Amino acid sequence: MPHSISILGATGSIGASTLDLIRREPGRWRVVALTANSQAAELARLAREFSAEVAVVADESCLADLRAVLAGSGIEAAGGAEALLEAARRPAAITVAAIVGCAGLAATMAAIEQGGVIALANKEALVSAGEVMKASVMRHGATLLPMDSEHNAIFQCLAGNDIAHVRSITLTASGGPLRTWNAAQLAAATREQALRHPNWDMGAKITIDSATMFNKGLELIEAHHLFPVGLDKLKIVVHPQSVVHSMVEYRDGSTLAQLGPSDMRVPIASCLGWPARMDTPCAPLDLAALGELTFCAPNEELFPATRLCRQAAEAGGAAALVLNAANEVAVAAFLSGQIGFTRIAVMVEKTMSRFGPAAPTSLEAVIALDAEARVHARALLELA
Amino acid sequence: MPHSISILGATGSIGASTLDLIRREPGRWRVVALTANSQAAELARLAREFSAEVAVVADESCLADLRAVLAGSGIEAAGGAEALLEAARRPAAITVAAIVGCAGLAATMAAIEQGGVIALANKEALVSAGEVMKASVMRHGATLLPMDSEHNAIFQCLAGNDIAHVRSITLTASGGPLRTWNAAQLAAATREQALRHPNWDMGAKITIDSATMFNKGLELIEAHHLFPVGLDKLKIVVHPQSVVHSMVEYRDGSTLAQLGPSDMRVPIASCLGWPARMDTPCAPLDLAALGELTFCAPNEELFPATRLCRQAAEAGGAAALVLNAANEVAVAAFLSGQIGFTRIAVMVEKTMSRFGPAAPTSLEAVIALDAEARVHARALLELA
Repeated sequence: MPHSISILGATGSIGASTLDLIRREPGRWRVVALTANSQAAELARLAREFSAEVAVVADESCLADLRAVLAGSGIEAAGGAEALLEAARRPAAITVAAIVGCAGLAATMAAIEQGGVIALANKEALVSAGEVMKASVMRHGATLLPMDSEHNAIFQCLAGNDIAHVRSITLTASGGPLRTWNAAQLAAATREQALRHPNWDMGAKITIDSATMFNKGLELIEAHHLFPVGLDKLKIVVHPQSVVHSMVEYRDGSTLAQLGPSDMRVPIASCLGWPARMDTPCAPLDLAALGELTFCAPNEELFPATRLCRQAAEAGGAAALVLNAANEVAVAAFLSGQIGFTRIAVMVEKTMSRFGPAAPTSLEAVIALDAEARVHARALLELA
Repeated sequence: MPHSISILGATGSIGASTLDLIRREPGRWRVVALTANSQAAELARLAREFSAEVAVVADESCLADLRAVLAGSGIEAAGGAEALLEAARRPAAITVAAIVGCAGLAATMAAIEQGGVIALANKEALVSAGEVMKASVMRHGATLLPMDSEHNAIFQCLAGNDIAHVRSITLTASGGPLRTWNAAQLAAATREQALRHPNWDMGAKITIDSATMFNKGLELIEAHHLFPVGLDKLKIVVHPQSVVHSMVEYRDGSTLAQLGPSDMRVPIASCLGWPARMDTPCAPLDLAALGELTFCAPNEELFPATRLCRQAAEAGGAAALVLNAANEVAVAAFLSGQIGFTRIAVMVEKTMSRFGPAAPTSLEAVIALDAEARVHARALLELA
């Protein structure tokens, strides 16, 4: 019997990579829901190709376009926030939660409610709503599989082991395009320079996060939620080649590491095939051809983001939510030329120090608080 | 209830490392048998310290010494080949099989007969008697755990996974002390030069095997017995730092690697603690301090050993046994100044081409054939 699958965020890069894998074994899969924000034509094309049960555009103004292309296909077309949640709630053996940003939070939570396997690619979900989301996973008997390359690597390195025997977990960081720059150079870094990522081809927001190291810091917060070993056991090492995706060290001195190409199809396949493994077309790892892997300690003076994220994780409550919201506002301000590169971390720290709300206890509270934190961050930006 | 353990080869380096770990958690272990070849005084000291049930010297001429030191301790003292087998057959939850060379084979087989966990550190056992030993493991319901750092690494990287999903297994090789030498230099390599291993402190035979790459070739044959993925999926990569101990690549493009210090206590602890993990005093891995890990393809023109070992594994039957016996004879001849460094592989290849007996089907046949192969190798040496 084919495996049922829904993809929330089907037209993004994770969605495309997921569908690329499904396309290779069509008989194995039955596509339930495919969703997109506004790319109706592309979504309709995918829904037809994969014979989806339902296609949903979050932006209701695109529904007419979606309906037009799907006419006569027998595929349901729907639009708007409520339709997105309804689609996410339909039973599926596995749901790929790949809607970027806080926007994906409600859909991810809706998918959790149906109790299947949730392959989580939405970073903000755990950062902003970690406790709320984990409580829902428990309540609905869902299974959370991390799809991020680092967390997926850790998940793989924990297989067959007891987390109680973990001595430390080390997230690897490419260090981003500005890794070797000094303070003066960083202060003058342009949008174009910060967008030039050496290893991964990703969206603008996450590429800037990689340059500031906020990406790694947010991953540290995620890891803190996913792998409860204690913050003091979570480490970061800079590894420019991005071949080792992360590592787990055990109490006996054994370290297990997961290595692979910079291709999201590897962690995606790990989730789709779990607990077994499925084929991908990714080239075998050739370490002799790579020649060397290098490692160095992160510089938290020049790149304070990981320090701030660790503080937020330590503080608990809404600190990580505020940090994440402030970072999104600051990155947008940097991308629009409003602030310099090194001001991103300054703005985040300032927002965190001026705005310390209590922990949200529901999805609605998370969303409201996230909006409020952005207002605070923007106000500080105006003042700056 | 304490875990019962026997150590065959208690006075060697594996024995010492094993006892070092046991010493740290004395209440957890009950020592059944400790054995040595001839070091009676040291064996007696260990037997007293660990309150062993029985201490055995293989060399019966040392029994009087052993008895003298153990007098009044309540510890049984025994000597000779039969006593060694009798001790190995006593029930123990785990037996560390660490007697070097073909000499350890009978004792390892005796330990298998009692059906416990066998932590195998004797390399020659699988190389010379792979089929015979595996048949005995199956028949007696024993569990074989590889204690060699490479095979233990592979074993760890397979945890929680199905071997059917393995795309390849890569053994790492330090390359030994002569890794960067050219043909002329290798031909003139002295005993002292070949004995200077960069990472591991081991016995003379295995250090020379590391310099010729026969060590890695023998490990390839062992891996072929332990992990039935097919010879074409077994690879070797040279990794001078010996930090990555080996790797397993899966069909989805994920590679799992085990990393750790060059300290045998790590793989030993992995076996002793299995399927959980136990503490070791080994320092945490600090990749930032190490800085870099390098990798290159092995050079089988200059170091033909891995090619010869692959051929022996492919040929099956008694080929690996003959190769191993010829290599032991050739290494001894090199160490005594009788032949040059590059003649070791030449002698092995010549012996293999001149002597091709049928596969042995019993332990007795293995031992007889091993002796016969040595006679052939020595005869070829005289002729050379």
